[in-house]
Amino acid sequence: MTTLSPTLELACDLIRRPSVTPLDEGCQALMMQRLQAAGFALEPMRIGEVDNFWARHGAEGPVLCFAGHTDVVPTGPLQSWQHQPFDALIDADGMLCGRGAADMKGSLASMIIAVERFVADYPQHKGAIAFLITSDEEGPAQHGTRAVVERLRARNERLDWCIVGEPSSSNLLGDVVKNGRRGSLGATLTVRGKQGHVAYPQLAKNPIHLAAPALAELAAEHWDAGNDFFPPTSFQISNLNAGTGATNVIPGDLTAIFNFRFSTESTVEDLQRRVSEILDRHGLDWHIDWALSGLPFLTEPGELLNAVASSIRQVTGRETTPSTSGGTSDGRFIATLGTQVVEVGPVNATIHQIDERILASDLDLLTEVYYQTLVHLLAC
Amino acid sequence: MTTLSPTLELACDLIRRPSVTPLDEGCQALMMQRLQAAGFALEPMRIGEVDNFWARHGAEGPVLCFAGHTDVVPTGPLQSWQHQPFDALIDADGMLCGRGAADMKGSLASMIIAVERFVADYPQHKGAIAFLITSDEEGPAQHGTRAVVERLRARNERLDWCIVGEPSSSNLLGDVVKNGRRGSLGATLTVRGKQGHVAYPQLAKNPIHLAAPALAELAAEHWDAGNDFFPPTSFQISNLNAGTGATNVIPGDLTAIFNFRFSTESTVEDLQRRVSEILDRHGLDWHIDWALSGLPFLTEPGELLNAVASSIRQVTGRETTPSTSGGTSDGRFIATLGTQVVEVGPVNATIHQIDERILASDLDLLTEVYYQTLVHLLAC
Ligand SMILES: [Zn+2]
Ligand SMILES: [Zn+2]
Repeated sequence: MTTLSPTLELACDLIRRPSVTPLDEGCQALMMQRLQAAGFALEPMRIGEVDNFWARHGAEGPVLCFAGHTDVVPTGPLQSWQHQPFDALIDADGMLCGRGAADMKGSLASMIIAVERFVADYPQHKGAIAFLITSDEEGPAQHGTRAVVERLRARNERLDWCIVGEPSSSNLLGDVVKNGRRGSLGATLTVRGKQGHVAYPQLAKNPIHLAAPALAELAAEHWDAGNDFFPPTSFQISNLNAGTGATNVIPGDLTAIFNFRFSTESTVEDLQRRVSEILDRHGLDWHIDWALSGLPFLTEPGELLNAVASSIRQVTGRETTPSTSGGTSDGRFIATLGTQVVEVGPVNATIHQIDERILASDLDLLTEVYYQTLVHLLAC
Repeated sequence: MTTLSPTLELACDLIRRPSVTPLDEGCQALMMQRLQAAGFALEPMRIGEVDNFWARHGAEGPVLCFAGHTDVVPTGPLQSWQHQPFDALIDADGMLCGRGAADMKGSLASMIIAVERFVADYPQHKGAIAFLITSDEEGPAQHGTRAVVERLRARNERLDWCIVGEPSSSNLLGDVVKNGRRGSLGATLTVRGKQGHVAYPQLAKNPIHLAAPALAELAAEHWDAGNDFFPPTSFQISNLNAGTGATNVIPGDLTAIFNFRFSTESTVEDLQRRVSEILDRHGLDWHIDWALSGLPFLTEPGELLNAVASSIRQVTGRETTPSTSGGTSDGRFIATLGTQVVEVGPVNATIHQIDERILASDLDLLTEVYYQTLVHLLAC
């Protein structure tokens, strides 16, 4: 077996710690040890059951923060894995295999190695470098990045730029970076009818019959057209339930759970008002519990995105595509500090799946992308 | 306590036997004993776990059959009953209280007493009198009337007229008789989509969104206008389910259970074809399992209905209203023999409920109605 690069060595070390949400299993201790050796001031923040830390190198602004999570999603059935998920090995095809290889222990290793090298090469660098690491991104995410950001906000900590290590690439390393995310607004809708017997429908009010035209209209509604950075807002009903199980009973109510992924062209208030109008227009007796999971955020082209794009071009020869598609990420919390946030990480094809893996050599490229971004923004 | 009439005495005897479906608990033995004493030929038919019997008096046609069931629905919580459900007592308001008082041990008692008296008064009566009694009307109803009717059909047994003892009256004894029932056609509809993540709706096909406009159209459809005897065909969705429970997953399919109560203006084939057309017009990938519970039947004004209406007028002074509303009954099986079928029984306000009860004096009136009907049709 050939010698591993420092990035792959550290990535394997991290993957071998089975840190399923909200466990950290010593990943953060390992990272902090390396950062301390590189001269960082450390600030562990255990909040509730969740391990987080904040680390900083340099007293002045501007501040470039690396953000990420040490927790991983569950493995699913172990017998389904070709290589055991916490073994962390590189297979015959040169793939680094294991839970967290892509999401996102590989990125964490690349960040550490890039920063170690940059601090060694540029001991008098401009501004500051920071780390914001959590072990609860894949879980409830209440006591992770969200809570750390509130502490940073409370003490007016400055965060100019943030690189989140989420696996942003689609087919080849660096082909896509995420410069924003849509908002996510959830809702549980109850439509009330009146229970009865199917043989006597005139004595009942069937909430399925009452709701169907309104649900059809909601599903067909054009919420907005999106914009240069965001696809149009989308609406999806994920769960729909009505009925007692008995085939001769008209149910008393209907429940629908739905979700908006929304662009910066719509506000939460807009969407809530428009849903209410449609339900009212259909004369329904309804109630909604709303749950806002995240506001949309957007990092328009500027210093950070330019630095990242240039670095990817230098390292891979590729022109990256900024995108705001996909799920939410902890970037949404950091962006509320007024920070430019970009997600830059490996190929996401196997995340959250059996046999999660990435091309091992991509991690060395990623280290180089992070390093060049540091050079662009903080070298002097 | 005053002496009970023969009808009430027998009704109490029957109610005291806790014959919850499919149990008979000796009710049929008691009835057969009385009928044998009145000169009937008895034919017990135990089919599967179900007790049934057929009894006949007279060798020639026309045949007037009394039909009914000795089983009762469960009591529900005993502590909710004002008087215990199998105690069979007459309360201070003159109500006969107990499970089966209305549905339909009261009617069975009236039939026996009326027939005993008629056979005694008219030993040389025309035609024949028959009884078709089951102990599985409230349950699966596979081995009850349906199965007995098949045996009768196989041997070409003639059944001209049938009086079913179901509680047909609405407010006052005899105000309503049922001269038919709507058909009942059930269905389980599956609409297939493609499962996916709510953040990537373009990769999924949401079966809720696809099905909603079709369900709305089915719910709004005018199936037929009914006719002089039947209300319009009605369509009701009783159960609607889609979703994995997770709020971020677009489900792979949707299931709807629905039911038609249909008039003689629509056939099963009509309804199936029209549903298929609507689903196809919406471009759905769908599958339906159909379940026909009963074809509609109708007894148009004629000898039997006239005899019943005249008897009710004689006994109560009321003009009865023939109706085809409400659920299905075993009449649907008997009607397939070409028989005129009419349901004549006590007030149905409390059937299947806690504190089931009827006006005790109504049972004596009902005995008289049955007796006069026998006179109209078979006296000579
Ligand atoms: Zn992640
Ligand atoms: Zn009944």
